[in-house]
Amino acid sequence: MNFELTEDQQAFAQTAKQFAETELAPFAAQWDKEHHFPVEVIKKAGELGFCSLYTPEEAGGLGLSRLDSSIVFEQLSMGCTTTTAMLTIHNMATWMIATWGSEHVKNDWMDKLVTGDAIASYCLTEPGAGSDAASLRTSAQLIDGKYHLNGSKVFISGAGATQVLVVMARTGDKGAGGVSAFVVPANAKGVSYGKAEEKMGWNAQPTRMVTFDDVKVDASHRLGEEGEGFKFAMQGLDGGRINIATCSIGTAQQALNTARAYMHERAQFGKPLASFQALQFKLADMATELVAARQMVRLAASKIDNNHPDKTTYAAMAKRFATDVGFEVCNQALQIHGGYGYIKEYPLERHVRDVRVHQILEGTNEIMRVIIGRRLLSDEIEVL
Amino acid sequence: MNFELTEDQQAFAQTAKQFAETELAPFAAQWDKEHHFPVEVIKKAGELGFCSLYTPEEAGGLGLSRLDSSIVFEQLSMGCTTTTAMLTIHNMATWMIATWGSEHVKNDWMDKLVTGDAIASYCLTEPGAGSDAASLRTSAQLIDGKYHLNGSKVFISGAGATQVLVVMARTGDKGAGGVSAFVVPANAKGVSYGKAEEKMGWNAQPTRMVTFDDVKVDASHRLGEEGEGFKFAMQGLDGGRINIATCSIGTAQQALNTARAYMHERAQFGKPLASFQALQFKLADMATELVAARQMVRLAASKIDNNHPDKTTYAAMAKRFATDVGFEVCNQALQIHGGYGYIKEYPLERHVRDVRVHQILEGTNEIMRVIIGRRLLSDEIEVL
Amino acid sequence: MNFELTEDQQAFAQTAKQFAETELAPFAAQWDKEHHFPVEVIKKAGELGFCSLYTPEEAGGLGLSRLDSSIVFEQLSMGCTTTTAMLTIHNMATWMIATWGSEHVKNDWMDKLVTGDAIASYCLTEPGAGSDAASLRTSAQLIDGKYHLNGSKVFISGAGATQVLVVMARTGDKGAGGVSAFVVPANAKGVSYGKAEEKMGWNAQPTRMVTFDDVKVDASHRLGEEGEGFKFAMQGLDGGRINIATCSIGTAQQALNTARAYMHERAQFGKPLASFQALQFKLADMATELVAARQMVRLAASKIDNNHPDKTTYAAMAKRFATDVGFEVCNQALQIHGGYGYIKEYPLERHVRDVRVHQILEGTNEIMRVIIGRRLLSDEIEVL
Amino acid sequence: MNFELTEDQQAFAQTAKQFAETELAPFAAQWDKEHHFPVEVIKKAGELGFCSLYTPEEAGGLGLSRLDSSIVFEQLSMGCTTTTAMLTIHNMATWMIATWGSEHVKNDWMDKLVTGDAIASYCLTEPGAGSDAASLRTSAQLIDGKYHLNGSKVFISGAGATQVLVVMARTGDKGAGGVSAFVVPANAKGVSYGKAEEKMGWNAQPTRMVTFDDVKVDASHRLGEEGEGFKFAMQGLDGGRINIATCSIGTAQQALNTARAYMHERAQFGKPLASFQALQFKLADMATELVAARQMVRLAASKIDNNHPDKTTYAAMAKRFATDVGFEVCNQALQIHGGYGYIKEYPLERHVRDVRVHQILEGTNEIMRVIIGRRLLSDEIEVL
Repeated sequence: MNFELTEDQQAFAQTAKQFAETELAPFAAQWDKEHHFPVEVIKKAGELGFCSLYTPEEAGGLGLSRLDSSIVFEQLSMGCTTTTAMLTIHNMATWMIATWGSEHVKNDWMDKLVTGDAIASYCLTEPGAGSDAASLRTSAQLIDGKYHLNGSKVFISGAGATQVLVVMARTGDKGAGGVSAFVVPANAKGVSYGKAEEKMGWNAQPTRMVTFDDVKVDASHRLGEEGEGFKFAMQGLDGGRINIATCSIGTAQQALNTARAYMHERAQFGKPLASFQALQFKLADMATELVAARQMVRLAASKIDNNHPDKTTYAAMAKRFATDVGFEVCNQALQIHGGYGYIKEYPLERHVRDVRVHQILEGTNEIMRVIIGRRLLSDEIEVL
Repeated sequence: MNFELTEDQQAFAQTAKQFAETELAPFAAQWDKEHHFPVEVIKKAGELGFCSLYTPEEAGGLGLSRLDSSIVFEQLSMGCTTTTAMLTIHNMATWMIATWGSEHVKNDWMDKLVTGDAIASYCLTEPGAGSDAASLRTSAQLIDGKYHLNGSKVFISGAGATQVLVVMARTGDKGAGGVSAFVVPANAKGVSYGKAEEKMGWNAQPTRMVTFDDVKVDASHRLGEEGEGFKFAMQGLDGGRINIATCSIGTAQQALNTARAYMHERAQFGKPLASFQALQFKLADMATELVAARQMVRLAASKIDNNHPDKTTYAAMAKRFATDVGFEVCNQALQIHGGYGYIKEYPLERHVRDVRVHQILEGTNEIMRVIIGRRLLSDEIEVL
Repeated sequence: MNFELTEDQQAFAQTAKQFAETELAPFAAQWDKEHHFPVEVIKKAGELGFCSLYTPEEAGGLGLSRLDSSIVFEQLSMGCTTTTAMLTIHNMATWMIATWGSEHVKNDWMDKLVTGDAIASYCLTEPGAGSDAASLRTSAQLIDGKYHLNGSKVFISGAGATQVLVVMARTGDKGAGGVSAFVVPANAKGVSYGKAEEKMGWNAQPTRMVTFDDVKVDASHRLGEEGEGFKFAMQGLDGGRINIATCSIGTAQQALNTARAYMHERAQFGKPLASFQALQFKLADMATELVAARQMVRLAASKIDNNHPDKTTYAAMAKRFATDVGFEVCNQALQIHGGYGYIKEYPLERHVRDVRVHQILEGTNEIMRVIIGRRLLSDEIEVL
Repeated sequence: MNFELTEDQQAFAQTAKQFAETELAPFAAQWDKEHHFPVEVIKKAGELGFCSLYTPEEAGGLGLSRLDSSIVFEQLSMGCTTTTAMLTIHNMATWMIATWGSEHVKNDWMDKLVTGDAIASYCLTEPGAGSDAASLRTSAQLIDGKYHLNGSKVFISGAGATQVLVVMARTGDKGAGGVSAFVVPANAKGVSYGKAEEKMGWNAQPTRMVTFDDVKVDASHRLGEEGEGFKFAMQGLDGGRINIATCSIGTAQQALNTARAYMHERAQFGKPLASFQALQFKLADMATELVAARQMVRLAASKIDNNHPDKTTYAAMAKRFATDVGFEVCNQALQIHGGYGYIKEYPLERHVRDVRVHQILEGTNEIMRVIIGRRLLSDEIEVL
């Protein structure tokens, strides 16, 4: 048991920190305002390996653990929550293709995905399904050696501006066992995109509905075997939850740092805010919760790395806790800024808007409680 | 002791409800998106008396109590939080002019203010002062029978689109006793306006800095006597806090109603959201807190109406409690909507953005705690 | 709409306050320690009418409203939580007998109940049933004009030291419609009592299991008609919830007053606790929540008095909110006292122990949420 | 970075778990009821090394790290909170004597302390000082080679039943630098004990005031140099905070396990409690918070082991967070038990009473916030 970063981890973190400070933070407000998807910056991130952090080395990735990756993503999200969140989705999709893709598909895409020359979107959620992944309706019918995809996906991050879609579709019976995963070129015939959703935050990436109207892909585009899609999706979600939780703690740390600095600068009643005990206590609680959230995320990442039998439970706990804490810390940092927290000249209101969706994405925090509660009540967990 | 609305109060509420449903609610999303200040709708509100609810009848107002007014504002804010908040500011300024204005000033402005043909902004907060009202620096120097105003005000709601400014400025020594209040035409020579602040919410009204560069007004533009300004400001704040708290509970009720309806419509795992016990409990708590918040607001309004010696404490309690509850209820209603709560197609994210500033305005909720704590510790309060 | 106490209400409150200060407060710690049931003090309370506050005047009671009664009980509970809680149970049982009892039963008991010469216990809860009142199993079989009662009741306040038992028992089919209510002399043949439960608090009254082993009572001992018992129980519960919520706010007010005084007396780091901003804020929040809780209780009491169609919902809201706030306020007052809050020389730990059960009794606060949620989701509530 | 227990740590935990289940858990309720201090069991604990877990091996201890020790104490506290808390105090005092004691003192005491034949109390807190350790008044005047101790200490755990007192007393000027630490035989002439405090919980150990009336000890009884006492006390506190936080999480885990089992056993409305979603969510949140608390404690223990420059901050965070979570989890577990949670037949109310003092001891949680806030605002903390 050891809670300190290794030298390698420190080095990764430093590289990511520098990237965040120079390539992300100075532009994040503008991207939010202009709803700009910074494709060029994602390419730069690819040069440093940030597009394939936990993709195996043999597939061109850095081959880091989920824990290492979380340390990198946390630093990146201090610069721009939304871009980092998009990067985590791309990393997940890239890892899925590298892990379960056919040679054909890997030849087509891995090089570009690793460098960020191609970006991947992940197509799971459907209208009317939300957190209920097993009930999906998009179909993939095998006809003469080609799968014909039909159906719609909603809330797809990056959609319309990415090159690759990883799509969950039904090849078999109702339920989880009938789902398969596919790699679909984003410009395949029959793929169409809805209008960019107007969102509270996450504006540095487009979110669109994606409709598949008899989209045909070769059988080689299937990931793994038929019926394995739900299993892949669940594995993806464990990691995805860690990633999104990581983006919450990075953003919250940035908000906390900003609030801390503001408390020294800003005076009220002739004294700096830093001298007011009630605000000191607020800051202390924000920091304490945040340290706890970081520990939860790293613990869960480590459980995934070790393929712990309860990795899904730990990931759900980390996601629930860290995204709730992340929102609360950002929201309190806004409050410390008073009126200035509410205007866009300061980053606080953007932080609040951006992290808010993390409590909803990748399974709402209510679904996390379902997962945790079910596990707790099914059998005793060894606690050591 | 009687907790039921009178027939008159029910009638006011019904009129306001209808206005909210037909003139505000259908347009609120668009006003938010386009940053449109609905001047024309404020005039329509004026026709129904909503521009001068508690302005004395002899000055052309409806002469309602603060409690009655709160009942009206609550209904209006169910239609549009921001417009109603602006209306409450206008009501306060109009009441101040009616109560302490000279005949000259009243002749100039009361008719227009009552009908909504002129709109008033309230200029108290200064850069670097925030919640510390007594330390203000804007000066008003009396030279040859005219006051020369110099200084700056920030976060002024409506500024640049309103016709009248009620301005707090220093005519005497440091401290609260040196402050006087003035009525300044918004287009007076020397008044200039900053750019519209980009805000998290409250987008249906412009917020600007206002700068006074040797603005000259006749002595008749002073409200009351020299040195009474801070007293007026404090009286204004008691009412202002009730008003803003009211806008929080109206918005929260609207969010709750929307969430309730959504829980019947939306299914997950084959059952409507309404059938999930954890969501039922969440809704129950939202409603319970909201009922408590409404009681607090009405209690405080009644204390102001009765000129109770602890009216300021009750107003601070109501503001703190109701704006915190209002935010929390809107935020939970967003959560119940899942991904749909995060997009602008639904009103939830707007409700969250709009009510967020209520925890900051009119004295932050931290300042409310200062006021309440000081009172509690100064002397025993009779509790019956 | 009027939030001020009437002169009568102020007079009741003053009388109760004096009684609490002289007859209850000085002895409450000792009663807790010695597990003493102060029968003699309940008689004194009876002299002032406190044993039959809302019993109709024609039956010898004071005929007050539930709102008036709540004002009295709040003052009493500032002196001793447990004794007042027992008094509220006695008041409820006395009111039930006065309202639905036969002439025979009323002749036997009303005089003694009104004076406190007899004390009544309320026997609803059964082992294995808890908050699920409709499933009760105690049976009352009518044989030759006499009801034969068989079964057990648990957690019966006062049991073994009271003279009258109001007992819910099944005379008919399963479900709510098969329940009837009976008045049973506490010393009737076949009634036996378990050992006094050792409890966390509420030690100034015994709590026992009561077993009915073929206890025979005349048909005149039935309250109302056969099958009306559940209806009576539910009506009783609405009032009982208000009463128990009232005991929480009275106790919390007492704890708050104690903490306030302590903050002036006690110094740390050379300054009185009262000078530390974080404690000022804590006290401010305690007081704010408490004022809100009081309003909720009085609102619900008023709804019962007016027989409002949603009285049960309001009572559930008040019970949930006020008992949660009551516990939290007492617990924070303990914390303000530091180590002294934890020892029995100070009353804080007793307050915490005593009010803790209010979150459980008369339907747990989880059951309150079930009631509120069900109502909210069944139909729209008019909000004015 | 590695979050898994080593094999050694698992073995320690297993030994402690077995001891807790056989020697502590079966008797804890009785010790609480009878206010019995289980001296004999502490001796048995000594046989397994639990009286000197982190005392250096050369002084006869096990020489474990603080992290290892926390793993052991957590298991023990699942059996009896109070006895384990007393053991942690004894461990701290034993470690202080082993680390800074003279050969003379070590010869006198170490063997007995290590075996549990002698038990040590720690005398820091004074009446009127509480969390303000630097202002202590107990004096130790050096006269003719002997220190004369005069003054009083309050809330001393074990006092009157222990053999050794580690006493902080003033040998020099006002402030932290004038404090020295002494080892005083509990039966030294001039040492007298107050009555056993009646407490809310922690009843399996006596708590008394200790008065020093010209108690003379040889200079060899001083720990370290004159003026080092405050430094030792602070080092002791870092560890003491981890220990007490550990007792909170162990107790909370026990309460959680009990509640989990109860949810399977107990039915309401015809279904086991485990089937109610709102209770599942409650259990999920309890477990999540508890896992986070455990991580915080272990992180802080590790920081102490590594002598990290911010070890005090991490210990304060862990103490604040884990004792708050511990109380909340126990309190919710009580609530899940309904009426049965309130009676002494079940352990829940005892758990609540026992852990309540952890939020107060070793520096109140308010003091923890002072420590954390001061550190956060003094300089930027590197976050990696």
